[in-house]
Amino acid sequence: MRVELINTGSELMLGFTVNTHLSYIARQLAGIGLRLDRQVTVADDRAEMRSAIGEAMQRSDVLIITGGLGPTSDDFTRDVVAELLDRKLVRDEAVASHIAERIRRRRIRLPESIYVQALVPVGAQVLPNRNGTAPGLVIDEGGKLVLLLPGPPRELKPMFEEYVLPVLEKHFGAQPRFDCRTFKVVGLAESIVEEKVAPVLADLPDLELGYSAKMGEVEVRIISDLKSTADEAEKRIRTALADNIYGVGDARLEEVVVKMLTATRQTIAVAESCTGGLIANRITNVSGSSEVFINGCVTYSNESKTRLLGVSEKTLASHGAVSEEVTREMAEGVRTRSGAGFGVSTTGIAGPTGSTPDKPVGLVYIGFATSKGTTVQRHVLTFDRETFKFFVAQYALDAVRREFLKK
Amino acid sequence: MRVELINTGSELMLGFTVNTHLSYIARQLAGIGLRLDRQVTVADDRAEMRSAIGEAMQRSDVLIITGGLGPTSDDFTRDVVAELLDRKLVRDEAVASHIAERIRRRRIRLPESIYVQALVPVGAQVLPNRNGTAPGLVIDEGGKLVLLLPGPPRELKPMFEEYVLPVLEKHFGAQPRFDCRTFKVVGLAESIVEEKVAPVLADLPDLELGYSAKMGEVEVRIISDLKSTADEAEKRIRTALADNIYGVGDARLEEVVVKMLTATRQTIAVAESCTGGLIANRITNVSGSSEVFINGCVTYSNESKTRLLGVSEKTLASHGAVSEEVTREMAEGVRTRSGAGFGVSTTGIAGPTGSTPDKPVGLVYIGFATSKGTTVQRHVLTFDRETFKFFVAQYALDAVRREFLKK
Repeated sequence: MRVELINTGSELMLGFTVNTHLSYIARQLAGIGLRLDRQVTVADDRAEMRSAIGEAMQRSDVLIITGGLGPTSDDFTRDVVAELLDRKLVRDEAVASHIAERIRRRRIRLPESIYVQALVPVGAQVLPNRNGTAPGLVIDEGGKLVLLLPGPPRELKPMFEEYVLPVLEKHFGAQPRFDCRTFKVVGLAESIVEEKVAPVLADLPDLELGYSAKMGEVEVRIISDLKSTADEAEKRIRTALADNIYGVGDARLEEVVVKMLTATRQTIAVAESCTGGLIANRITNVSGSSEVFINGCVTYSNESKTRLLGVSEKTLASHGAVSEEVTREMAEGVRTRSGAGFGVSTTGIAGPTGSTPDKPVGLVYIGFATSKGTTVQRHVLTFDRETFKFFVAQYALDAVRREFLKK
Repeated sequence: MRVELINTGSELMLGFTVNTHLSYIARQLAGIGLRLDRQVTVADDRAEMRSAIGEAMQRSDVLIITGGLGPTSDDFTRDVVAELLDRKLVRDEAVASHIAERIRRRRIRLPESIYVQALVPVGAQVLPNRNGTAPGLVIDEGGKLVLLLPGPPRELKPMFEEYVLPVLEKHFGAQPRFDCRTFKVVGLAESIVEEKVAPVLADLPDLELGYSAKMGEVEVRIISDLKSTADEAEKRIRTALADNIYGVGDARLEEVVVKMLTATRQTIAVAESCTGGLIANRITNVSGSSEVFINGCVTYSNESKTRLLGVSEKTLASHGAVSEEVTREMAEGVRTRSGAGFGVSTTGIAGPTGSTPDKPVGLVYIGFATSKGTTVQRHVLTFDRETFKFFVAQYALDAVRREFLKK
């Protein structure tokens, strides 16, 4: 079974947008035992698109095409595919109603051209678009499938998981699954992770092993055709990395933390200086976080550290805002004032400006207060501003996670 | 002149690594007047790679191939290309010395297999690798160029800028440069943007026009071979979209807002419920924001809205947390208590839970308080949780930007 992916869009070919569809779709397909054989990107150019799609149709059993389904003049994927397959485009009234309903709900006026998205090649199956107006389309061409999906990730992703995967599974039946597992590791550098993992797996045959260094974490990946091999490898990896593994697959550290808080009916409040709201933002990205998150204070100015958290002016004056002492008072202040079980605080120098002779760019303190006391970590993290913030948030969230691992 | 790019690597085709080479290389090529016609990704699979490279060689004048030049068993791009072009691989002593020197400097022991990277197809030009052991290779095949470049971005990027661009310019001469401009638009749907822009540009010849709907904004892109055409198109687009254009190129709304605040020595404080810290996080992503950002309050609980912002318990009880009245008190409270010139507030139902019969998921209020008074916007935004937060942050930041546009 041969699977290909074509991503269309001049913004991709001009370099304005990074293509994240390949990565997302490859992982989704792996979940049902399918591997991508080739991926092609073309601009919104009829001739190039026609040639790339035509060639891929010849080669593949499943062809997934993204982008170019919208209402504007540079959206013509639907037309090119209909031409290549010699199918007429007809208006689908259910799709038209869905578009009308979305416009009505948002109380906005849109031009009539929006209804070009209700045109569907004869015989195509329509996949609903929960987050947009352009539906997905599935065309069965003599047993080969051609799928057209919208380009915006927030439209494509729910459609892929809700409709595309079941369509593929139903059409092609169960594929021999390769067993692919990913372990998310926090608190260890990539080279250290490899040093711990590679030797213990060396004698396992037919095991594919990979490492990816991501922002603030490392992913370890194993692939095997045999479940027993994957099981054994997983056992050894879990022993080698122990509690540095915070999750598997697509887990996110903030999800793990919110789940732990929810399960134990604990609450949290955060006081952020250098992370500037990122920790609160990550926690509140998790649905259900309102049950455990009391409040956050983003205290950039010294005055706000005193006013909102009760940090003493004397401590600020004698130790400076980026200090262990202020970090401690921030964590304790936000905990006490909010009544939360846990208080987390961050203060540091994100850069590129703000350093002093004894306090370099990248210096950061992370505080963690509970009913049992307060701990403060110190790090020097030399990254660009946004990476710095993410790493600090990662350390702070991991401090909360590790609290739950204590016996 | 036809240019293609092939990226090789199983980590790309399994979805573990996002392919950033396309975006990087496309922008570099645009700088010397070249556009990519097609991009292909294949796994480390000899047959697939051979077929993809063979086909691309037929079609293109320049073929750039990345990845698979390393020393391990899954690196064989060099071999596949040498076979296809029927050129022998011979050891290049200068490359071998460079490898030996790097190993010596790093004081590490490496297996002899590392010297496979000194093998070069007969007649190929070698491009030095400042950050690694695998050199780049340029093969002139009867006037067509095939370039092999290492996969790791930190090796590829300096090589591209130092050696690849000059090689291309020297070989093909100066290309007619195309003029590409991007306008970032906020507050209008993609179809409305087109409705306003397309008619006024209809009579301009040889102008390529594109639209991309991003989260909370739309990009309008014009490309022309003539500067005068691009200038005229820009003039008309600016008239048509007026103050919905917040910037050009890679501008971000939060950067524009921080710049406006800084230039006028204004300050801001934010009170976030449904955005959960995202607005504060975006503002503090901008270097220098500490000059204008006083503090943020992420007030998820009702109690924290009262404690940190002074929202009255009576207002909360009679109107509910998601209401125009509470939004107003939040914006005014955070402004007054912080002493900032501007106060911004958000409260809404991000979903998927939390709706009531008269307050649907997606309902949101955005408050903006200044010394002259307070305005509150109401929207219903039906997106997934993170997109919802981003849209609301976008509306809130845009409210600040528009304050500066007032006469």
